[in-house]
Amino acid sequence: MKSLATYSAYLETALQQDHFPEQPANLYDPLRYFLKLGGKRMRPMLSLMACKLTGSPMEKALPVALAVEYFHNFSLIHDDIMDAAPLRRGQATVHEKWNTNIAILSGDVLLVRAYDFLATYDAVTFQQLFKLFNRTAVEVCEGQQKDMDFEQLSDVSESEYLEMIRLKTSVLLGCALQMGGIVGGATQKDAQLLYEFGEQLGLAFQIQDDILDLFGESAQVGKQIGGDVLANKKTLLSISAKKAASQSQLADLHEIENNADPQIKIEQTQKLYTELGAHAYCVAQMEFHHNQALKALENMELSKSKDELLELANFLFTRAY
Amino acid sequence: MKSLATYSAYLETALQQDHFPEQPANLYDPLRYFLKLGGKRMRPMLSLMACKLTGSPMEKALPVALAVEYFHNFSLIHDDIMDAAPLRRGQATVHEKWNTNIAILSGDVLLVRAYDFLATYDAVTFQQLFKLFNRTAVEVCEGQQKDMDFEQLSDVSESEYLEMIRLKTSVLLGCALQMGGIVGGATQKDAQLLYEFGEQLGLAFQIQDDILDLFGESAQVGKQIGGDVLANKKTLLSISAKKAASQSQLADLHEIENNADPQIKIEQTQKLYTELGAHAYCVAQMEFHHNQALKALENMELSKSKDELLELANFLFTRAY
Repeated sequence: MKSLATYSAYLETALQQDHFPEQPANLYDPLRYFLKLGGKRMRPMLSLMACKLTGSPMEKALPVALAVEYFHNFSLIHDDIMDAAPLRRGQATVHEKWNTNIAILSGDVLLVRAYDFLATYDAVTFQQLFKLFNRTAVEVCEGQQKDMDFEQLSDVSESEYLEMIRLKTSVLLGCALQMGGIVGGATQKDAQLLYEFGEQLGLAFQIQDDILDLFGESAQVGKQIGGDVLANKKTLLSISAKKAASQSQLADLHEIENNADPQIKIEQTQKLYTELGAHAYCVAQMEFHHNQALKALENMELSKSKDELLELANFLFTRAY
Repeated sequence: MKSLATYSAYLETALQQDHFPEQPANLYDPLRYFLKLGGKRMRPMLSLMACKLTGSPMEKALPVALAVEYFHNFSLIHDDIMDAAPLRRGQATVHEKWNTNIAILSGDVLLVRAYDFLATYDAVTFQQLFKLFNRTAVEVCEGQQKDMDFEQLSDVSESEYLEMIRLKTSVLLGCALQMGGIVGGATQKDAQLLYEFGEQLGLAFQIQDDILDLFGESAQVGKQIGGDVLANKKTLLSISAKKAASQSQLADLHEIENNADPQIKIEQTQKLYTELGAHAYCVAQMEFHHNQALKALENMELSKSKDELLELANFLFTRAY
């Protein structure tokens, strides 16, 4: 897919341009640092693609793309504090490299600056974008809170879990696409379908992440597999396995959970999750949301070729399970 | 001043109305709690007064007043984490009562919700308000960062210190007033003068705070005096005293700083600051900014009586020095 690289290069150039003042250095240096750590830039790319789909040049969506990327990075900087994560994309997190206070405050100012990009559009478009963006921002915070709450709960239902990942991850993808559509001039119906495409794609992608964490090949996933299992993290796999388990299988799960040997713990979990049908169930769930995304794309009336979004959707799901 | 109580009661009623969803409780309970801790509500009151000054009903400015108050409380919740403060208005801070992660995230969502109030105006007014509000939000973050930076510096100049307190405190007062004026329909010139009134009032008020912390009567200040001196905090008093001191007086200041007896430390500092003329200098500086504020008020063309803002300005400076 030639176009992914084109979008990516365009975005990197825009992001590398220095949008921040020199001083106070302790406020803005962390942002310059963090925004250069890279990442897939999937969210801003979706904004550009959606805009192009309407027949408008992708450049028209650059401000919304940057607003989404700034917001995403704000949430990563603050999430990293909350998760006490030492690394992000292989590099020190802001609170590790500087300190927690600086990470809080530079995250705050990054959020504030995200809004500035939206205000570059005319007043009516700005207000429309703002309402979508702000609703999404609230939802992402709610998703993060639910995620933290779930760590303290012994039982989380499948629907609660799916709602959490929808809020924490999917709504921002939907927002990125819909905003790109809005500035490009999409009809209200198409703008809504762009949102749904992103929302469903996000759900599929997050479920895929859960699956790959345990059943992926280490080289493919880019990290050691089994991290979620070793951290006793709730995922769609663990929730659906628990739901399908008999009393004795629940006891087995509990025993495996307390096994001190990481290799044995991972292997036995893989085996039991497969036996319980949790693995197959999650793959089916992932495919369901992936197909829902494709359906939303099909239903759009947009005149331009949808190949790019289709390719992106498929590109994101070419890994084996 | 009858009107202060009227504004105050109106604001409390509006703030006590529950603007937050029930769930996630760990996200929204801290906000319900924090917003009920009270405070003078000086910032939102300024928005209402400015609006009324234009001849419009104060109710028209309620959304901007709430946006300012939400923003102010967001910054307090995050500042309290950064300062490791256990108490706010005599009650436990959010990070103490819940935890740091919850304080970060509930602060974030409060900032996001502040913007929502601005979007209730028509699109053109919204964009105008937004630009002022967002510039102010960036400045407040910069002021907080400078304040943290100053703790690590041995030398801070008077102008650097004044710029820090302008950013950290004054610009939000200016913003509150200007936004109130804008929604009321003030001319551009008057809206700008309202901003200047707030900015200068804020500087005077902050300098007064510095003075009262060391030279106020304990009963009047509402807390033990000398807190800044005991914490070796940089204030306009300490900066101007240092500037005026001879080599031997600098040595005296240094010796006093290292005195372990708090009572002696406070008394000797008071004595030396007075001898050095720092006390008188700060009172003069405070009066200068107070007068600048009154001048801005005089220069306004607004037809309505300016008595309320004048009274408020004078009310804030009725304490003895």
